[in-house]
Amino acid sequence: MPNNGSSATAPPVATVDVPRGLKGVVVTETAIGDVRGAEGFYHYRQYSAAELARKRPLEDSWRLLIDGALPATEGERAAFADEVRALRAVPPAVAATLPAIAMVSHPLNGLRTALSLAAEERGCRPLYDLGHEARRADALFVAAVTPAILTALHRLRGGREVIQPRDDLDYAANYLWMLTGQEPGADHADAIKRYLVSTIDHGFNASTFTARIIASTGADMGACIVGAIGALSGPLHGGAPSRALDLLNEIGSADRARSVVTAKVRAGERIMGFGHAVYTTDDPRSLMLKEVAQRLGGPLVDLAMQVEQTVVDVLAELKPGRHLYANVEFYAGVVMSLCGIPPEMFTPTFSSSRVIGWSANILEQARDSKIIRPSARYVGPPPPQPVPS
Amino acid sequence: MPNNGSSATAPPVATVDVPRGLKGVVVTETAIGDVRGAEGFYHYRQYSAAELARKRPLEDSWRLLIDGALPATEGERAAFADEVRALRAVPPAVAATLPAIAMVSHPLNGLRTALSLAAEERGCRPLYDLGHEARRADALFVAAVTPAILTALHRLRGGREVIQPRDDLDYAANYLWMLTGQEPGADHADAIKRYLVSTIDHGFNASTFTARIIASTGADMGACIVGAIGALSGPLHGGAPSRALDLLNEIGSADRARSVVTAKVRAGERIMGFGHAVYTTDDPRSLMLKEVAQRLGGPLVDLAMQVEQTVVDVLAELKPGRHLYANVEFYAGVVMSLCGIPPEMFTPTFSSSRVIGWSANILEQARDSKIIRPSARYVGPPPPQPVPS
Repeated sequence: MPNNGSSATAPPVATVDVPRGLKGVVVTETAIGDVRGAEGFYHYRQYSAAELARKRPLEDSWRLLIDGALPATEGERAAFADEVRALRAVPPAVAATLPAIAMVSHPLNGLRTALSLAAEERGCRPLYDLGHEARRADALFVAAVTPAILTALHRLRGGREVIQPRDDLDYAANYLWMLTGQEPGADHADAIKRYLVSTIDHGFNASTFTARIIASTGADMGACIVGAIGALSGPLHGGAPSRALDLLNEIGSADRARSVVTAKVRAGERIMGFGHAVYTTDDPRSLMLKEVAQRLGGPLVDLAMQVEQTVVDVLAELKPGRHLYANVEFYAGVVMSLCGIPPEMFTPTFSSSRVIGWSANILEQARDSKIIRPSARYVGPPPPQPVPS
Repeated sequence: MPNNGSSATAPPVATVDVPRGLKGVVVTETAIGDVRGAEGFYHYRQYSAAELARKRPLEDSWRLLIDGALPATEGERAAFADEVRALRAVPPAVAATLPAIAMVSHPLNGLRTALSLAAEERGCRPLYDLGHEARRADALFVAAVTPAILTALHRLRGGREVIQPRDDLDYAANYLWMLTGQEPGADHADAIKRYLVSTIDHGFNASTFTARIIASTGADMGACIVGAIGALSGPLHGGAPSRALDLLNEIGSADRARSVVTAKVRAGERIMGFGHAVYTTDDPRSLMLKEVAQRLGGPLVDLAMQVEQTVVDVLAELKPGRHLYANVEFYAGVVMSLCGIPPEMFTPTFSSSRVIGWSANILEQARDSKIIRPSARYVGPPPPQPVPS
């Protein structure tokens, strides 16, 4: 609040009214990426996110978002991979506390607690007090340590031993290794890599905005990420990829798809895994993950594809003009399930890669020294009323 | 992200440009309170906050913000006080973890970690899935348990035993009791009560906005509060009441005030404890706390009053037209110090009462089912560029 620098004698600020929920309100500029909802396209910096997910290891997109460029040589690639690999292990005080956290916490909310502590154990200081290199190091840390925290919380909840990270595995393969204790096949490692890359960032959503507001106060990297995790945990934001899988399980076989879906739509229920606030055409993440699912193959994939077509048909019949397509959740659950990830880890797995996107947004916000502080309109009874004694 | 209910086929949303940092942008309506910067006035619902701080115990303002009305009878007052008193103790899993948290954490950031865990231990569920009564119970819990967490973290850091809450003391007196292990005198209990009431809420600041964005995703009470604590920890928001006290210590005696302050202003340094982004006249919190300090009296208070006058005079001479007044930090540090609160607990003590304000804002936001999701303008290199293989 010390604010000698403020224009204390400037005339009162004119208030500006904006749409509810800030829909369409441009609150900042960014060079990190964007979503073009009408085109079914989203990008990380100048590259298609789906293309990055197909062609590059996760670490390349991580470097792209944090440092602004893909590695141009094998040497650059290895240097970044080495840097983040060294930050994978859970620091000792957090490791000692994880059993207590796991005992009472859902893994995503446990990550909120554990990363809050990890940032302190590391000694993350306010962004306001740091130069770019120190901020960047904290950004790499929070994203690098997240998989080990999440997988440890999951295993501890199940009464199993914690699996330590393996230096010979990349981010995606190591994630599955720490989660399951088994070295993943190349197909599963590639599938989950594509999923993770595709979920690193996705425009200016509520958790990204939260991270940037906290960053605008000059708080530390841990404070920003913990707030973002909180926002992602909201049902209206992070959703629940497991619900789309629940739908497939409820339907069970393709011949039951039409009757189950029709009954749900007629009853006014939402069909989980369909429709998105931004995309008015196919969700590019869904298309990419469908491709991944098809490469993995099997009865669950066949069922999912048949159900997808049925839902699109039924919705077109019963809700004409709505153009509802499968969203990222629909095939995400299928892909994660085929890779051996249990449903309660779907959203935590989503959060794991999203920490990378948040941290890039936080670094970008930290270059701006202006706090984000809007206004509210008071609509209660007029003050001052005398306080009764 | 499941969003069948969205207007997926509506025309693209028109984008709206707004001032940087959202200054003056009305993002919501509220009946909780407001700040009238030009009048030097702020209020909780229909009552002057400063008047509430003078006339009523903290629990009355707490009830006012959460339930919408001051207690009208002694019975109503006692019922609310009983309800929150029962929620004061740190739950067992958190209590067992506090030593580990205290070992590596600043108390405010330790509160972030501990409340995150406490919300899980209590079983706080997404606001989206709860009715008002369940949300309200979680709101009372996070605010009621905060003093015990903060004071325990502080004592554990100093290698001292944790002091349990006392049922015969109200919020303010119990805060000092748990912090110091000594029953406070009536003058100190009243002074800190006035400070705490005066800091419960203060318009639509960055931490309150953060709490409400997280609430707008339907996340749980813990997620919302933890994000708000993160925002408050930013140097541009929570500030550092101890810096104003540092200034007094640096000056040491009144006869040195003019030379020290003049040198600082000429060197372009900020004078800590003066100026505010919203108030263009006396900060009403500063006036109230100056009154509190005068009632306590002593050499530190005499020095503070002389320094305040000197700073105002020097700033008027050297920065004419700026009208910089003492802000909440200036006398807050003096009052807290006289009540036996050490400087590293100034901002945590501020956060303790502010949790009440955040939780009231979260309950208000939770009645609105619309997610807060603005936009950003992409200004990087145009996509899609082909991803090099």
